[in-house]
Amino acid sequence: MKTSFRNDYGRFAHPQILDAIARYGEELNDPYGLDRHSEAAAEEIKRTFGCPDASVFFLMGGTSANLAFLSYALRPYEAVLCCDSAHINVHETGAIEGSGHKVLTVNGIDGKPTIEALEKALRAHTDEHMVLPRALYISNATETGTIYKKMELLKLRDFCRENGLYFYIDGARLGTALTAKHNDVLPEELGSLCDAFYVGGGKNGLGIGEAVVLVNPELQRHFRYHIKNRGAMLAKGYLLGIEFEEGFRNGLYFELARHANEMAEEVDHVLQKYRYEPEPFESNQLFCTFPHPLAAALIEEFGCEKWSVQDNATTIRFVTSYATTLEDIAALDSFLRTR
Amino acid sequence: MKTSFRNDYGRFAHPQILDAIARYGEELNDPYGLDRHSEAAAEEIKRTFGCPDASVFFLMGGTSANLAFLSYALRPYEAVLCCDSAHINVHETGAIEGSGHKVLTVNGIDGKPTIEALEKALRAHTDEHMVLPRALYISNATETGTIYKKMELLKLRDFCRENGLYFYIDGARLGTALTAKHNDVLPEELGSLCDAFYVGGGKNGLGIGEAVVLVNPELQRHFRYHIKNRGAMLAKGYLLGIEFEEGFRNGLYFELARHANEMAEEVDHVLQKYRYEPEPFESNQLFCTFPHPLAAALIEEFGCEKWSVQDNATTIRFVTSYATTLEDIAALDSFLRTR
Amino acid sequence: MKTSFRNDYGRFAHPQILDAIARYGEELNDPYGLDRHSEAAAEEIKRTFGCPDASVFFLMGGTSANLAFLSYALRPYEAVLCCDSAHINVHETGAIEGSGHKVLTVNGIDGKPTIEALEKALRAHTDEHMVLPRALYISNATETGTIYKKMELLKLRDFCRENGLYFYIDGARLGTALTAKHNDVLPEELGSLCDAFYVGGGKNGLGIGEAVVLVNPELQRHFRYHIKNRGAMLAKGYLLGIEFEEGFRNGLYFELARHANEMAEEVDHVLQKYRYEPEPFESNQLFCTFPHPLAAALIEEFGCEKWSVQDNATTIRFVTSYATTLEDIAALDSFLRTR
Amino acid sequence: MKTSFRNDYGRFAHPQILDAIARYGEELNDPYGLDRHSEAAAEEIKRTFGCPDASVFFLMGGTSANLAFLSYALRPYEAVLCCDSAHINVHETGAIEGSGHKVLTVNGIDGKPTIEALEKALRAHTDEHMVLPRALYISNATETGTIYKKMELLKLRDFCRENGLYFYIDGARLGTALTAKHNDVLPEELGSLCDAFYVGGGKNGLGIGEAVVLVNPELQRHFRYHIKNRGAMLAKGYLLGIEFEEGFRNGLYFELARHANEMAEEVDHVLQKYRYEPEPFESNQLFCTFPHPLAAALIEEFGCEKWSVQDNATTIRFVTSYATTLEDIAALDSFLRTR
Repeated sequence: MKTSFRNDYGRFAHPQILDAIARYGEELNDPYGLDRHSEAAAEEIKRTFGCPDASVFFLMGGTSANLAFLSYALRPYEAVLCCDSAHINVHETGAIEGSGHKVLTVNGIDGKPTIEALEKALRAHTDEHMVLPRALYISNATETGTIYKKMELLKLRDFCRENGLYFYIDGARLGTALTAKHNDVLPEELGSLCDAFYVGGGKNGLGIGEAVVLVNPELQRHFRYHIKNRGAMLAKGYLLGIEFEEGFRNGLYFELARHANEMAEEVDHVLQKYRYEPEPFESNQLFCTFPHPLAAALIEEFGCEKWSVQDNATTIRFVTSYATTLEDIAALDSFLRTR
Repeated sequence: MKTSFRNDYGRFAHPQILDAIARYGEELNDPYGLDRHSEAAAEEIKRTFGCPDASVFFLMGGTSANLAFLSYALRPYEAVLCCDSAHINVHETGAIEGSGHKVLTVNGIDGKPTIEALEKALRAHTDEHMVLPRALYISNATETGTIYKKMELLKLRDFCRENGLYFYIDGARLGTALTAKHNDVLPEELGSLCDAFYVGGGKNGLGIGEAVVLVNPELQRHFRYHIKNRGAMLAKGYLLGIEFEEGFRNGLYFELARHANEMAEEVDHVLQKYRYEPEPFESNQLFCTFPHPLAAALIEEFGCEKWSVQDNATTIRFVTSYATTLEDIAALDSFLRTR
Repeated sequence: MKTSFRNDYGRFAHPQILDAIARYGEELNDPYGLDRHSEAAAEEIKRTFGCPDASVFFLMGGTSANLAFLSYALRPYEAVLCCDSAHINVHETGAIEGSGHKVLTVNGIDGKPTIEALEKALRAHTDEHMVLPRALYISNATETGTIYKKMELLKLRDFCRENGLYFYIDGARLGTALTAKHNDVLPEELGSLCDAFYVGGGKNGLGIGEAVVLVNPELQRHFRYHIKNRGAMLAKGYLLGIEFEEGFRNGLYFELARHANEMAEEVDHVLQKYRYEPEPFESNQLFCTFPHPLAAALIEEFGCEKWSVQDNATTIRFVTSYATTLEDIAALDSFLRTR
Repeated sequence: MKTSFRNDYGRFAHPQILDAIARYGEELNDPYGLDRHSEAAAEEIKRTFGCPDASVFFLMGGTSANLAFLSYALRPYEAVLCCDSAHINVHETGAIEGSGHKVLTVNGIDGKPTIEALEKALRAHTDEHMVLPRALYISNATETGTIYKKMELLKLRDFCRENGLYFYIDGARLGTALTAKHNDVLPEELGSLCDAFYVGGGKNGLGIGEAVVLVNPELQRHFRYHIKNRGAMLAKGYLLGIEFEEGFRNGLYFELARHANEMAEEVDHVLQKYRYEPEPFESNQLFCTFPHPLAAALIEEFGCEKWSVQDNATTIRFVTSYATTLEDIAALDSFLRTR
């Protein structure tokens, strides 16, 4: 399979990142993330996201980042709020609970917890016989590719401040969120919109790694002890430093994300051209419903994931990435033309 | 407040239990639950519930029992299924998650998970990116006082067997469940209906303590190590042995529970006499809706818990116990008569 | 066996405590430790130990108390220092580690960690690749019955303050420590000598329970949530309230402890009378070495625990308690007379 | 600093590994370690270490591997035995305890636990008031670079079998151990000498990653769930697959390790040439004592780690690696010549 719409992490890294790895691959570096590349990358990230006093740590994956942060921010009896479709609730094999904390779900719309649902959850947690909600987790882009508008983030931030919750953003797909057509959040505003977030590298062509950014000064002390305790400190942290330094030095990170979003629009055009009706989408994930046989054929040919099954139709997911090409789009076009 | 319908654990113990404690209070006993009273009580319990090869352990509370059992039965990546209103989900301050395990909720009807909801949950958990459901938790009586019929337990047991789940019954109010008017489960059948359960003492006049009964031989090894590791082993375990020995030797346990159920019926009669309409009830908890002022007065006078608030009315809970008397019922009657 | 020197928790409670339990055994009380007895007991304890602003919580056992406190005070990457013979290190089946924290041992003399050993341990823990020592655990009396002089506690307290360690005293046998012949610590001084401690009830005739006293204001917030999360909150907490209220209202607690110490001196006299040489002792535990056959006979007759075995002799432990009588001493005397 | 004897993970990867990464860097691969490279690498590893029925998993670091394995193999009340200098005891910031398990240390000689010390530890753990020892951890090479002879491993394996312990080998430096001059363990024998081990990639030029090899069939089920639960599953696991495939396909792994060992001998020669006396060494770590000023200069110039400080001298560590060159040795020589 050369063309794939299966996911955005099927290829290791963009050539420019591969070049950087090759360039520094034999260079002598300080271990455990204390090297010059990690430092430079951290500076770029703090500058980019407008949080000069933040602390930045490079971890090896999204579950590892969420686990490290939440188990650090919460006391044993405290819980994290999120919407029911949240990655930490569904797709991390109980990693947050494995660190001792309840994941407290509320109903979500478009993959986002509503203020009403959050308020209801807080009202229901009245005393020491129930967990104490202490953090709010969202992801931007969400699990289904929707994105947050600035006003939504501001409301959630204010809600968190008023209710003593840390506001944490899972940015596994932060790149495509911030470069989406309808996005109105400037990267340099993000730092002041939350207490902590992570910048996803792995799903945006940077190789392996995510950059955890701790903005709130309450949340910075001894974090290096914590990630070591969680088994998440990399001896060769400089690999991630090299990747993120290259990714952020010259705008590559957002360029790759923008490309992924544009390719999603191309997929949309092709589908519409053949009278299929993809659901409204906002970033690099796109859902569309087909008759069972065609869905099966698309899954077979393009690696799409089966999302849900109805009586007469199947909904599948298309994911584009930094690596999606116009040839991939053309392959989809010619495949659908013959159906 | 002399009369209270607040809960069933507001008084320490029935006089017969108090007598036993006084009688053996200075007797020399082996510590850590290895005494003759605990042994005798365990024998009575195994006989009563029809599980001669079970292991019985006395712990000091319901959360402690649930926590000890589930953290013993589950591997780190495994989860326990239950309905959304389950005690372990709502009212144990994240104790199960605190031991590392996800509590996986499904919709319930009358405080019971439906087979359909359970099947759907199992179907949704398909691979290693999600937790592995490994146990089913129910309580009998449930959080709202409903009880399980034998056919329901059989179906759940079979469902568990077919799907590799341990079936665990929280019996905080097992006494009132098994002596409820519509109950059709014989005590001596219970042992073969599940893998493990606990017999609640604290809510049925026995003083402090619950008897955890491990029926499935897979679930017995090294459990004493486990409860010590969880901080749940009592040096003076013989206190619980004395209580349960007394409670089970001569039928006191079921007698007390039967009394609580009968008193609930009396509450029902009184309420109906004054044209209030309690919800259908099955054991020693009874819910009824009143205009706000009357609800407030009943809460004030009888300690009833506020359960939910609607626009023009409030629903409150009446709980009866081994200690509820006809005088208490009369007090309620005369209170309502003047309204 | 009527006479036993096996341990100090083989009998449930002193008659005066039993009376209180009988007296209040059917009284209606608020659950979860919010009752008037617990409140009164807490007041007595704060007054007794000179810490009017402390928070007091009643838990059901020593391991439970240590586990609840340490897992509350420590962040995931932090460790508790103690000497190698410490109860939390040896005899709690890994309960502290089970809550996620390393127990960091240093050499001890007479069951006490030395300042030198502690300093060495701190010096060795230099960076985030090692745990961060954050608390010091001692027990008074120690595992072998030695006690701390005031100067020792002051030095440890100052050491802790200088090094950012919480100083925690396991007082399972606090009563016999503070009433020991050579003790120079006034009860009312204890509160200012540490950050937290627990007052052992179970080993001093009070029935079941220990009173955790949190002196340091940093260590008080949300502790009720925490003990519920650990499965350690008692629905019928008023039982412990009743016991401690009775124990502390009129000096009974120290009276019982003093008696235990006096009985240990009687044991010492008897042993010396027959030319055995008990090791120097300070409270209610006493160690003595006998030829193997005699040691075996004493174990058989008086339940003494075997402590260690040498080539030609066995060391056994005698423990006295509030319940040890002059008849018990006489029994030992007549037993030894015939040997 | 071009020449460094600081550690063996200061450079990302050997050129041949870098080439493989570049070659496959844009190739489309299945995620989560289910790709063809990981599969091929696993086959090579099983073949190399003589365990055709083992399961192989690629994780991102040594602490992560130890944590994932031990928290999988142990029940909550079980502990792992190791010698006091073990990496899991000293240098993993309490990661194993963080997963809930006691690390039970025994005295070691040359970084190895003795059978006598292990036997003593087992004898001391007699009942449920103490943890249950269930696994033995060693590392080969050890923390100080010593290696195990075949007879030693056989004895430990037999000891473990007789005592119901899982035998686990931390192979962070397995390469230099198995290619050491005095090694008599054939790689293809290793699989039958233990229950599980990991093959260190990061300290032997393979880039990032360690290969966990589960030999004992009891220890294979659901391990993928477990590593995801621990936050240790890599979305782009194929990176590690690519590295280990390349490293094991044509003997590169052992070639690199042999080179590191040879360079250690060269360091030894140079030191001896100038009349310094390195301690006897066996693999790629070498310890030598110098007057304080010279030690400081070597630390400054060559990045050596300070190991211990005596009154008149300092012991420092030299580590060689796949990347150490004869130029590095020459630099050391000329540096010492001028002293």
